[in-house]
Amino acid sequence: MKDQVAIVGIGETSFGKGFTESELELGCSAIRNALQDAGIAAGEVDGVACYTMEETPEFEYARNLGFGDLSFFSRVHYGGGAGCGIVGQAAMAIATGQANVAVVWRARKRSGKASRVWAQTPPRLNNHWKWSQPWGLLRPVDEVALLARRYFHDHGASRDTLGHIAVTLRNHALNNPRAMMHNRPLSLAEYQAARMISDPLCLFDNCLESDGAVAVVLARRDHAQDCRQRPAYIHAWSQGLARGQQNMPDVFGADPFASASAVAARKLWQGSDIGPADIQVAQIYDAFSPLILFSLEAYGLCGRGEAAAFVESGGIAVNGGRLPVNTAGGSLSEAYIHGFNLITEGVRQLRGTAQNQVAGAATCLVTSCDATPTSALLLRN
Amino acid sequence: MKDQVAIVGIGETSFGKGFTESELELGCSAIRNALQDAGIAAGEVDGVACYTMEETPEFEYARNLGFGDLSFFSRVHYGGGAGCGIVGQAAMAIATGQANVAVVWRARKRSGKASRVWAQTPPRLNNHWKWSQPWGLLRPVDEVALLARRYFHDHGASRDTLGHIAVTLRNHALNNPRAMMHNRPLSLAEYQAARMISDPLCLFDNCLESDGAVAVVLARRDHAQDCRQRPAYIHAWSQGLARGQQNMPDVFGADPFASASAVAARKLWQGSDIGPADIQVAQIYDAFSPLILFSLEAYGLCGRGEAAAFVESGGIAVNGGRLPVNTAGGSLSEAYIHGFNLITEGVRQLRGTAQNQVAGAATCLVTSCDATPTSALLLRN
Repeated sequence: MKDQVAIVGIGETSFGKGFTESELELGCSAIRNALQDAGIAAGEVDGVACYTMEETPEFEYARNLGFGDLSFFSRVHYGGGAGCGIVGQAAMAIATGQANVAVVWRARKRSGKASRVWAQTPPRLNNHWKWSQPWGLLRPVDEVALLARRYFHDHGASRDTLGHIAVTLRNHALNNPRAMMHNRPLSLAEYQAARMISDPLCLFDNCLESDGAVAVVLARRDHAQDCRQRPAYIHAWSQGLARGQQNMPDVFGADPFASASAVAARKLWQGSDIGPADIQVAQIYDAFSPLILFSLEAYGLCGRGEAAAFVESGGIAVNGGRLPVNTAGGSLSEAYIHGFNLITEGVRQLRGTAQNQVAGAATCLVTSCDATPTSALLLRN
Repeated sequence: MKDQVAIVGIGETSFGKGFTESELELGCSAIRNALQDAGIAAGEVDGVACYTMEETPEFEYARNLGFGDLSFFSRVHYGGGAGCGIVGQAAMAIATGQANVAVVWRARKRSGKASRVWAQTPPRLNNHWKWSQPWGLLRPVDEVALLARRYFHDHGASRDTLGHIAVTLRNHALNNPRAMMHNRPLSLAEYQAARMISDPLCLFDNCLESDGAVAVVLARRDHAQDCRQRPAYIHAWSQGLARGQQNMPDVFGADPFASASAVAARKLWQGSDIGPADIQVAQIYDAFSPLILFSLEAYGLCGRGEAAAFVESGGIAVNGGRLPVNTAGGSLSEAYIHGFNLITEGVRQLRGTAQNQVAGAATCLVTSCDATPTSALLLRN
C-alpha cells in the first residue's frame, strides 16, 4: 500500500490549560479545521479511527459533524503508542476499499482532578502492575527514569544530554505561535536548576500537560491529488509490541531497549523503499526527553549508544542539525496531545509550510511512544 | 482483498456460568485451542485484534502464550457490534502485509455482581443516554423491545413470530454438546408462558448469560492451504455505523431500521462477487430474538417486512429451511460470547464439521449486533 493513501488535511485547536470546552467540542473543532484544510465535506467521511483512551464515542463526532454512513471504525490501545497506528489503520482501510475518506484524531480535555500518586494506586494490585508499583514505579515518568538511568550507565550519557534535548525543542517552539512555550526561552542552566520529578528526570524532561485537539484527514492517492493541499503520502507504517512487554518495557529483562520501537522500526523499514539515512526530518514522541534517545537508536537514525553524542553536538536542531527533530517544539514545548501534533507538524514539513521549515524536506519519520506498544509513520511528498 | 485471507483455526472453551477461571485464563485456553486446530505455533503470531470491552490488555495474551513480536494490534468499540469487524481488520492487516498470522478473540468472565437497573443509572447523565434513560430505556433489551413493537406495528408480526425464532434456535442447540441448552427442549407454549423482561420480549427472547471464550486464527491464502484444516476464506467483510446513530438506533427518527446493518450490508455486497440469494447458511447476531428479523431484512436475505413470515414458515430451521440460521443454537441457546461463537460455527459449516451440518454449505454470512454500530463477514470455502 506504499504511497497509495495520503494525509490531505490537518486541523488543530489552540493548545493550553484549563479550557472550558468539552473533549467533544475540541475534537469537533480540530476535525472541522482538518476537513476545511482538505476541502472535503463532512458528509464524505466514511471512516474514523481514534485512541481507545478517547472518552467520546465515534458516533458523537459523526452526529455532530454530519459525517456520512461509516464503513470503518477502529481504535488502538496504549495511550501515546497509538497515534501513528490509528493513522496507519485508517490508511489500510482506504487502500483496501473499506472507506474512501477517513478522519483520525486525538482530543484532550483534562478533568482538572489530581491527587498524590500513592493515593491513586489501589490497595490491591491483581495485574502486571504488581511487579512495579509496590517498588515506587507509580507513574510513567518513574519507569522512564529507570530506563534513562540504565542508558546513562550503558553509554556514558548524563543529565546534560537530556538538557540539550529540552533546550533544542524549546528553541524550536519559540517562534511557533501555537506552542504553549512560544516566546519562553529555556537555558541549559535553568534546565539543570529545575526541580526533580523522578531522578534523573526534572521538570523540563516531562511533557507539558495540555488541553486541545488535533485531527488529520486521509484519502486515496487519486482523490488526494484533487485536494486543496499538497498531499503527504503514507509511504509505510507499522506497529510494534515486543515479546515480554508489559504496558511499559520489561525493566527486569536483559535488554530493556529491545523495545516496541525496535519491532515497529524493523517492520517499517521492511515495508519501505528508503532507509534511515534518507530521513530528512523526524517527529519523535517525547512525553519524556530520554524517549528521543531511545527512538533515534531504535529506528536506526543513530547507532546504538550514539544518540547522546548526536543530540549534544546539535544533530537534532533545525539550525545546522543533520536530522532536525520535533521542529514545532514537540510534546516538551508545543503541547502534549499524546503525540498527535507530531503528525500534523510532519505534514507541514512536507508541504513546506512549517514555522521552522527544513529546506526541501521530502521525507519525514513520525513515531509514537517508545515506552509502550507503539507505531510509526513514514511520510513523503 | 477477496479470499486473500482465511480463518485457519478455531478454538473455544466450554460455555457456562460461574466459572472460576479468569478472563485471561479463558482467553488463553480458547486461543491455544485455535492455534492447535490450525497447527500454528504461538511464536508465529504477529497480529491481534479484540473488542474494546475486553478487560485484559493484548500484551498479557502475548506474554502468557508466547506470541512473537506483534506488528498489528487493533480494537473495535460497541460491544456485540465489534466481532466480525475485528476479524475483518485483522484480515486487512494480513492482506496488506502488516502481519502474517493473527489471532482474534472474545473472552468473557462475568463479575457476578448485579444490581437493579435503576440503581446502575447515574443520577446525572451528560451524554446521549439522557435522551433515552430517563424514559425507562435503561437496558439494551428495553431499546430492542421498542424496535420490536414498531416492527410488529409495521409488518403484522407478533410474539408468536419471536417464539418461532427462540424455539428454532433451541432445537439447533439440543444435539450440540457445547450448548448451554444442550438437551433442554423448549416449546412454543413454554415460550408464551415465560416471564416478561421488557414487553414484548420475554425471558426466551434474551440471550444466555455466559462465561467462556472463543478465538480464531487467520493466515494468508498460501499459508492457509498448508494448515491442518480446510480454510474458511474471508470473501468480504464490512462495518457499519449509520447517520444519526447513537449507541443504539435512533428511535426518534422516521426509520429506525435504516440501521448500522443496512450500512454494513451495502458495503458487504459491494465488495462481494455473490449476493444474498447465494448464501447457504447464516449466523446472525441474536442477543435478542428480534435482531434476527431486522438483520435478515437489512442484509437482503428477506424482503422488507417479509422476515416474520419467513421464520414462521420454518425458513431458518436446519431441517427444511431455505436459509438455516444459528445452526449451533446461537446466543439464545448455545452461549452468549458477544457473538464470537457465531463465527466459529460459520467456519465449522464451511468445513463440513458442524453438528447440524447444512449439506454442501459453501457460503456463510456472519453478522454482528444489528442494534449497535456493527460488522459482517462473508465466508466461503
